[in-house]
Amino acid sequence: MADPLRDDLDTGKPVIEEGMGLREGVVREVLDALDQNDTARIEELVEPLHYADTADLLEQLSPGDRRLVVAILKPLLEPDTIAELDEAVRDEVLDLLDTEEVASVITELDSDDAVELVADLEPEAQKAVLSAVSDSERVMLEQGLAYPEDSAGRMMQRDVVAVPSYWTVGEIIDHLRAAEELPDDFYDLFVVDSKYRPVGTIPLSRVLRTVRAISVGEIMESDRELNTIPAMTDQEDVAHLFRQQNLISAPVVDEDGRLLGVITVDDVVDVIDEEHEEDLMRLAGVSEADTFRAVLETTRKRFSWLLINLGTAILASLVIGAFAATIEQAVALAVLMPIVASMGGNAGTQTLTVAVRALAMKELTPANAMRVIIKEVIVGGINGILFAFIAAAVAGVWFQDLNLALVMAIAMVINMLVAGLAGTAIPLGLAMRGIDPAIASAVFLTTVTDVVGFFSFLGLAAWVLL
Amino acid sequence: MADPLRDDLDTGKPVIEEGMGLREGVVREVLDALDQNDTARIEELVEPLHYADTADLLEQLSPGDRRLVVAILKPLLEPDTIAELDEAVRDEVLDLLDTEEVASVITELDSDDAVELVADLEPEAQKAVLSAVSDSERVMLEQGLAYPEDSAGRMMQRDVVAVPSYWTVGEIIDHLRAAEELPDDFYDLFVVDSKYRPVGTIPLSRVLRTVRAISVGEIMESDRELNTIPAMTDQEDVAHLFRQQNLISAPVVDEDGRLLGVITVDDVVDVIDEEHEEDLMRLAGVSEADTFRAVLETTRKRFSWLLINLGTAILASLVIGAFAATIEQAVALAVLMPIVASMGGNAGTQTLTVAVRALAMKELTPANAMRVIIKEVIVGGINGILFAFIAAAVAGVWFQDLNLALVMAIAMVINMLVAGLAGTAIPLGLAMRGIDPAIASAVFLTTVTDVVGFFSFLGLAAWVLL
Repeated sequence: MADPLRDDLDTGKPVIEEGMGLREGVVREVLDALDQNDTARIEELVEPLHYADTADLLEQLSPGDRRLVVAILKPLLEPDTIAELDEAVRDEVLDLLDTEEVASVITELDSDDAVELVADLEPEAQKAVLSAVSDSERVMLEQGLAYPEDSAGRMMQRDVVAVPSYWTVGEIIDHLRAAEELPDDFYDLFVVDSKYRPVGTIPLSRVLRTVRAISVGEIMESDRELNTIPAMTDQEDVAHLFRQQNLISAPVVDEDGRLLGVITVDDVVDVIDEEHEEDLMRLAGVSEADTFRAVLETTRKRFSWLLINLGTAILASLVIGAFAATIEQAVALAVLMPIVASMGGNAGTQTLTVAVRALAMKELTPANAMRVIIKEVIVGGINGILFAFIAAAVAGVWFQDLNLALVMAIAMVINMLVAGLAGTAIPLGLAMRGIDPAIASAVFLTTVTDVVGFFSFLGLAAWVLL
Repeated sequence: MADPLRDDLDTGKPVIEEGMGLREGVVREVLDALDQNDTARIEELVEPLHYADTADLLEQLSPGDRRLVVAILKPLLEPDTIAELDEAVRDEVLDLLDTEEVASVITELDSDDAVELVADLEPEAQKAVLSAVSDSERVMLEQGLAYPEDSAGRMMQRDVVAVPSYWTVGEIIDHLRAAEELPDDFYDLFVVDSKYRPVGTIPLSRVLRTVRAISVGEIMESDRELNTIPAMTDQEDVAHLFRQQNLISAPVVDEDGRLLGVITVDDVVDVIDEEHEEDLMRLAGVSEADTFRAVLETTRKRFSWLLINLGTAILASLVIGAFAATIEQAVALAVLMPIVASMGGNAGTQTLTVAVRALAMKELTPANAMRVIIKEVIVGGINGILFAFIAAAVAGVWFQDLNLALVMAIAMVINMLVAGLAGTAIPLGLAMRGIDPAIASAVFLTTVTDVVGFFSFLGLAAWVLL
């Protein structure tokens, strides 16, 4: 296969989008071959691809084309390709395999990927697959499934290299050369005591640069640098630990502190992506990223958030309705009122997004919460005053009415102050109650800024103008 | 030090927030000690902390407290702690150190962290620091600074372990045991040809499980599994490659394909966090996460986005103003019009967020763009019809006016269709023109949904009702 990176190197250009991973052209070529029913060509195109590229290719196809390509590629499909697929696409592909085929995919996968795949199956299919695999595989899968979703126990790989502290480097090397069952890749050795509890870690690079006679105890990292992760730990906390301490792998332990498995950073990268996606989607009122979902499912999942939004929009309309008589006397109010609400909504969203992100990254904590709230209210106040002048000038010039300009200015300051306060206090309050601040913040916030915006503007107008 | 993980293990509870990383209590204890001027106590509290925990601690303090604590801790402050700080906080801390101190911090850091730190200094300070370090260090820093920000050349660590393909495993082990200058941690060996071009990779775990006599050529991974990264590659593409292929480290090469350095996954995790943050912030109209920025700077940075928003809000008001006469005759229109605009804005934001995310993850590509746009328009249309019924019922019951309900229904369908179309077409169009779809999409989108929402509702009303 032509190496796209090398091609780019030859032209001396920096590699952009298409240079990395799956080349754009491959998708088109596969589609062309499909049109011509040229199965040999499809196999020839897909065979040299990295398993992750094959997964990307399958995701890019329409569901119909995907069915055809999977039928052709079945014998070539690597288990890792299936593990790598987006969940919605994976469900589709698994539906095309029979129980035996799914069981054989699962047997070949690393234990963490296998558990994740089985967990996503429908109860029926899960049962069928569990009875089709070997006894030892089934026990492993059932143990993995026993941990809650999103826990360290689910994320961990069972195969782990543990050594006693009285060994020497030479004994480790001999052991590894002789061992038959080793994980595919590992980056740290875990030193365990007689009860199989981790007491230290040794990065492989340290083993390699140390002479045979040195003992494990002398080169292991322990005490403050040992990060054991209880199996029930939430994956978000696991990600935080890896990110904060630049870890490559970390041991997972049971309630008695005994070594159960290992979490490696590549799985943590997936979790980080997942958590980021969740925050982004929830702030926008989408239950999950749905690029690969079917139309009806996407419509249904977005409907509920829009229904909530309709409720809050009606609430805001009720506020306006209460001032219908005022608007009837000065239609300029109807023209200008969305400005106040919109500015509050946007200023609040800025604050909210920063707060949600800071909570997720554990930068916003009880220790600095009050300072952050005060800061945001001040920021809202200052920008409120600045925009009060600008908006008042616009209103004054447009409608030649000084009182109207004054009402605009005061309402703007009020709504921007409220936006700063609500933008931090709402996510903080939700987080303190254990609710994900991303999921419910936005709807609360815009309700507040719309209602306060319309009420302060129209209320002041009713009082000052009439 | 009491291990917080172990404490939690003892109570049998899953570890939550405070269990991982910096304990909440430490911040309070440091503040208490500061109140009592107890510098010994502060040193005692901070000394056992992981460098990343010390960084978190400093971030949590107010600027005033931070100055005091840094003054006390100066001799204890690890260079890695400073590298780990949020940029805004790091600038503050570096201001408290003199040139000699900054130079010594830089000399101790890994080359990638050192370059990043020097790059963030003011030109004056940068010059001073560069003349205070050793010649070899200065050359290394200047080479690093020559690469564009956010490029692979900036991210890479210069120290790298390269071996020729004719070596045996035994020779590698002997070399590593004897070598004096090795990176602190490394995970892969890079096999190079006579021109120092990478031709393969060997994970350390493979070296360790292989007997001495085997040659490098027999155990290295090459061809499709070799991912060399040109130094000018954008960090976003680097992150994509690592994420997609579950890499731990990858070699960086110059235009001639010669090995320059190595990028490790821990730096990629930082890039992933940074890119995610950028997307999230830009969608909300914040130039960057500003939790740790000063009030005035935060105010100024948010002002410009709010000013743009004011412009678009005024545009929407102009549309309303064009129908002032219509509203004067039926004030119910003023009450109901925000509902149509708001529903369009929210439906559009859902679509937009999914599209921006899919573009960032390279799931939305030219190959499936048209399919995604069509899907989103259909989703918008279906939800538009559903909400047309609901909103029409609300309007009809509230104002006892069938025509008004009809206008509401038609305007709702139009705006939701437009929202689906604009929510995908805008970010796609921006991305195709090389503009970050996150940064400018939201303002375009809400302008479109507001203008279309008000225009279709009021325009239809003017036509049907009057």
